Amino acid sequence: MTPHILVVGSLAYDDVHTPYDSRREVLGGAASYFSLAACLYAPVRLMGVVGDDFRASDLDRLKAKGIDLAGVEHAKGKSFRWLGKYDHDLVTAETINTDLGVFGDWEPAVPPGFVDSEFVFLANILPEIQGRMLDQVRAPRATALDTMNYWIERRRDALTSVMARVDIVTINEAEARQLCGTHSVLKAAREILRLGPRAVVIKRAEYGALLVTGDRLFWTPAYPLEEVRDPTGAGDAFAGGLLGHLARAGKLDDRTLCEAVLHGTVCASFAVEDFSVDGIERADAAGVERRVRELHALVSA
Amino acid sequence: MTPHILVVGSLAYDDVHTPYDSRREVLGGAASYFSLAACLYAPVRLMGVVGDDFRASDLDRLKAKGIDLAGVEHAKGKSFRWLGKYDHDLVTAETINTDLGVFGDWEPAVPPGFVDSEFVFLANILPEIQGRMLDQVRAPRATALDTMNYWIERRRDALTSVMARVDIVTINEAEARQLCGTHSVLKAAREILRLGPRAVVIKRAEYGALLVTGDRLFWTPAYPLEEVRDPTGAGDAFAGGLLGHLARAGKLDDRTLCEAVLHGTVCASFAVEDFSVDGIERADAAGVERRVRELHALVSA
Repeated sequence: MTPHILVVGSLAYDDVHTPYDSRREVLGGAASYFSLAACLYAPVRLMGVVGDDFRASDLDRLKAKGIDLAGVEHAKGKSFRWLGKYDHDLVTAETINTDLGVFGDWEPAVPPGFVDSEFVFLANILPEIQGRMLDQVRAPRATALDTMNYWIERRRDALTSVMARVDIVTINEAEARQLCGTHSVLKAAREILRLGPRAVVIKRAEYGALLVTGDRLFWTPAYPLEEVRDPTGAGDAFAGGLLGHLARAGKLDDRTLCEAVLHGTVCASFAVEDFSVDGIERADAAGVERRVRELHALVSA
Repeated sequence: MTPHILVVGSLAYDDVHTPYDSRREVLGGAASYFSLAACLYAPVRLMGVVGDDFRASDLDRLKAKGIDLAGVEHAKGKSFRWLGKYDHDLVTAETINTDLGVFGDWEPAVPPGFVDSEFVFLANILPEIQGRMLDQVRAPRATALDTMNYWIERRRDALTSVMARVDIVTINEAEARQLCGTHSVLKAAREILRLGPRAVVIKRAEYGALLVTGDRLFWTPAYPLEEVRDPTGAGDAFAGGLLGHLARAGKLDDRTLCEAVLHGTVCASFAVEDFSVDGIERADAAGVERRVRELHALVSA
């Protein structure tokens, strides 16, 4: 049986503005993007928190994909809201406003039915909470985390401590440089690797992703799209494809990790093709496999 | 017999400053970098102009590699000088000063012994001169050009006219975007392709290079270096490896073009490992082949 994937992270409403188009109050959050990608590969269990304002129809979209929402808490107050703006290069978002709402003082507790999850993704959240999540899962076969500049600046020690406890660290390029104080992405990746994880994946947006393990360097370009509509959630959809492929394969060797990075890259490409989770929600297994083959061809001389 | 490669471009003295180190009056210029890469593959004929101040010892370095300097003019005045400064990211140079010297009003005339050259590289120079060079070579099997933002802004029509006449356009990513008025590199490459060349190569510095032909998309990452010392000349060394491999292979099909892009990428990696042309001058065929194999491995899942 395919192992279960557990994700803990945000469920949010986003206002997204690009120079070409915009959307208000659309489904977002790391856990949404991750789940909709990972569920293409394996059963997903979601831990998150929503406020009174969260639409049942949005939870239904996740349920419709077989995502187990037994870990979604309903709290009094407003759901996490993010307002972001992209420049014409559609790469880096300027955060105009963040309202954590009920996410702000949420202390997730893994439901009994979820503690046996074999693959665990700790999306971008307070590093101390990521650590307490690891305490609660029984015997995961692979754990991974993502983070952001905010925690690097304010919770560096807690962050490096939890990095030491996971198997895979995913981090974007600028944040890896910031964390390690070097422009060299390779040096940064190796420094993170020395903290303890088995693998580091550096996310490079339109330039793809770099996987570094003790024995292996692997680089995949991004899936070549003529047009990106909304880059929000790309990194979380990436992690969903990555963990998804690992769970489906049931192993964590270098070869499988390389393939998993390709799957992550492809899931990210679906995510950025449309606003909100619409792109990754529309993706299916056949479409993913087609793009993975195209990525192989893209680099084959 | 391996066909001859003809290059026309600058021979210069550079002052290069990085936050970590600097060099004064070191050998530079597009034709130097190109030749020292291309000569690893095929016999090279160089067209350039130098002033009274050009050191015989620098010409000897090129001669020592078998580069044919019959096309180097000696003019009264100063050689081309460039003073550039790199930020800590070691990617984009700020030009502090350019003194064209004798390069400024040079009108290159292809020597009779060079007109039968089969592979021709028109380094970054006034587009009208690139066009007149094409008029003078008899029956080249492949022609390629490079350019820069300066000509895109001031000589757009002349530039697109000469792009229409060559087989391969090499251009860096920012300049491709600027030329085509789009952030999408893929759209830009296809727009340049529509002008007439058989292939467009977008140079992406630390992110590698993208090859676009009518039927093929090919992306190679950069060769992963822990440290870049001086990025000057990377694009010209890239072009040297590219044209060099094509000349040695004696063909221009998509497959050969992909391999040529890998060779260009590797030559660029040698160039940026040290100041001036020192890195590419030290490279040898075995070292190039080793890195090409490593690049293949880097993208093999």
